[in-house]
Amino acid sequence: MATKDERLREIIRHAYANAPAFTQLMDGAGVTPDDIQSVADLPKIPVTSKDELVQQQRANPPFGGWLAVPPHTLRRIFISPGPIFDPQGPEHLFLQEGRAEAFEAVGIGQGDIVINTFLYHLVPAGILLDDALAAAGATVVPTGPGNTEYQAQIAMGLHVTGYVGTPSFLKIILDKMAEMGIPKEAVPFKKAVFSAEPYPQSLRDIFEGEYGMRTAQTYATADLGVIAYEEPGQPGLRVSNQLIVEVVDPESGQPVPTGEVGHVVVTTFNKTYPLIRLGTGDLSAFTDETHTRLKGWMGRVGDAIKVRGMFLHPLQLKGAVASIPGTGNAQAIVRRPDVRDEVTLKVEFSGEDADREAVAEKIRAAVTAACRLKIDTVELVAPGSIPADARTVVDERTWD
Amino acid sequence: MATKDERLREIIRHAYANAPAFTQLMDGAGVTPDDIQSVADLPKIPVTSKDELVQQQRANPPFGGWLAVPPHTLRRIFISPGPIFDPQGPEHLFLQEGRAEAFEAVGIGQGDIVINTFLYHLVPAGILLDDALAAAGATVVPTGPGNTEYQAQIAMGLHVTGYVGTPSFLKIILDKMAEMGIPKEAVPFKKAVFSAEPYPQSLRDIFEGEYGMRTAQTYATADLGVIAYEEPGQPGLRVSNQLIVEVVDPESGQPVPTGEVGHVVVTTFNKTYPLIRLGTGDLSAFTDETHTRLKGWMGRVGDAIKVRGMFLHPLQLKGAVASIPGTGNAQAIVRRPDVRDEVTLKVEFSGEDADREAVAEKIRAAVTAACRLKIDTVELVAPGSIPADARTVVDERTWD
Repeated sequence: MATKDERLREIIRHAYANAPAFTQLMDGAGVTPDDIQSVADLPKIPVTSKDELVQQQRANPPFGGWLAVPPHTLRRIFISPGPIFDPQGPEHLFLQEGRAEAFEAVGIGQGDIVINTFLYHLVPAGILLDDALAAAGATVVPTGPGNTEYQAQIAMGLHVTGYVGTPSFLKIILDKMAEMGIPKEAVPFKKAVFSAEPYPQSLRDIFEGEYGMRTAQTYATADLGVIAYEEPGQPGLRVSNQLIVEVVDPESGQPVPTGEVGHVVVTTFNKTYPLIRLGTGDLSAFTDETHTRLKGWMGRVGDAIKVRGMFLHPLQLKGAVASIPGTGNAQAIVRRPDVRDEVTLKVEFSGEDADREAVAEKIRAAVTAACRLKIDTVELVAPGSIPADARTVVDERTWD
Repeated sequence: MATKDERLREIIRHAYANAPAFTQLMDGAGVTPDDIQSVADLPKIPVTSKDELVQQQRANPPFGGWLAVPPHTLRRIFISPGPIFDPQGPEHLFLQEGRAEAFEAVGIGQGDIVINTFLYHLVPAGILLDDALAAAGATVVPTGPGNTEYQAQIAMGLHVTGYVGTPSFLKIILDKMAEMGIPKEAVPFKKAVFSAEPYPQSLRDIFEGEYGMRTAQTYATADLGVIAYEEPGQPGLRVSNQLIVEVVDPESGQPVPTGEVGHVVVTTFNKTYPLIRLGTGDLSAFTDETHTRLKGWMGRVGDAIKVRGMFLHPLQLKGAVASIPGTGNAQAIVRRPDVRDEVTLKVEFSGEDADREAVAEKIRAAVTAACRLKIDTVELVAPGSIPADARTVVDERTWD
């Protein structure tokens, strides 16, 4: 097995030779592939933020110059909110290995029937976790998100032992089961793997304490796959062997000392889509000197935030609002009453007052469609009541 | 390569030894595996209708005694409306071969980027066609159904050359593109494979005549995979080599002569889920003496009909309506204005009149959730206005 430094040298050479965006990035910074001999040399390469990736894809569609193989060799192209095109080649097998580690951690394997509640189309989460569950030997029930009562019926009817999805949605399913009169001890779930949102201690107390489940969270992104995963009984999240993680100063891009909070920057070994030093926009800290464990998710660097497991991008939100005549500035406020994310959208409106409800509904439909995320409430407000420099997306959620 | 008779003898022995439902069926009919030496012997085995399969699954969950492998070897369990559990084992590779044949028929292969608009979770269509597209060498964009404008944007943005889904939905996407000001010659689709609903000549004239696409329909079910597929320029649908198709008298289960309309009965070689003589509920006719070509879909035997590619089951519909207090008999009427299926549901209602709109909305939500199919309109009618013996689902669509 090649060392990380060997694998890094290989992917850097490959990306420099085949991915025009990376060639340009290196040339612009005056760095050559030979300058990168080990992980310690990575900070010589500028960080590419997720917002820059979106802009590069827009300027040079569909992959912004980061695709390093002939397009016809792609297995799939996913579309994440942004919109961001995520190419999938054979190397996603590496990501699957990373994911299989997380399933082994809670003991999901042969004999388990698992509902996978992530979305199976457009975004990669559902299909890739499905493949990883198969690699772990489990039988998958591809339920996708939503349909809470149906999920509960399926879980009972098939005696489903495992759950994959967000912690929030498992709580909603368990509440529905209680409402259906199913006693806690009859709930079949024994093991759960979470992703796409933080896993608060309050929910862990319920799942592990009240229901006796084994649970583990993973930290993953659509571009990169599983970055780190929890091992039960161990602190923090273990960094996957399938990529290189740095925690850096958001301004300088230079590594911060162990224990200090910084921007999580990831380098993949994925030859199809060799993202080198991609800034995830997430904040975290290393908990040990070997840089193999992250403290967990500690906030965001950029403007986009995740709601119900999907990114809400300010630019996309503004574009959708602007498509409705009479609208001005807009601001989304995300709250989390009773462990479910709720989005209220305030929109300045200067049009005729006659049919404000219809206008609000049009805005709701346009934003829901563009951002692939349901907006719960739209409030029309007077022009000028949202300052021009206000944050477009305000996160008022707490995760305890 | 084994002959069909050899493969049949093998699957009969396997099913008799491992699938209790089949053992019971054979014993009850006084037939032994030795009695089945060739395809010509199949009529000795009683036909199992789709409704019987649903009842067997209910009585003996989840697979009604038809699973012939240890449950832990299953790759996935799908859930089709009914509800019917569809187990997937490694043998679904055979189905993929069947599907790949259909893609080759329109020339979908390496270099094609294809949107797959079938649902990727719950039902098998999306994932299995995704695998088959990969087997054909194409790049898949797993868009799933719905989101017409987004589908149009993706098709333009990625220059998507292929479409997989229902003919109706392709028409809706093309209409949306026209509405967006995209001229016909700029529409990137060149090849389309359809399934889940009939493909009328009127739409073929549009897709092939006005847009210059190569198109082919497939005839497939969730339990069996691709049964037959169209080869451009050839009459009728070619029966897949991966299964045995009979066309029989719906009453007697005995084969009808070539050219006569009868019930399509299918026997799989699937060792995981060896459905032997499953009645699909569909009507068709063989067009040649070698029984390798079907005339196409010619109607239904049972009560369940397909709407927008999903089965609408009368029992499930009635159960959902009955869950709302004050309701009586119900009847769904399916129409097809402007090539899109529309469902109007009439429900007898004897409750207080005060909030009839809210009651109608409750019924709509319950039926939509239970049947996994959107009900367009609910009409509350006076008690007694739907005769007790009326058909629960009335199909008023035409397919020209």
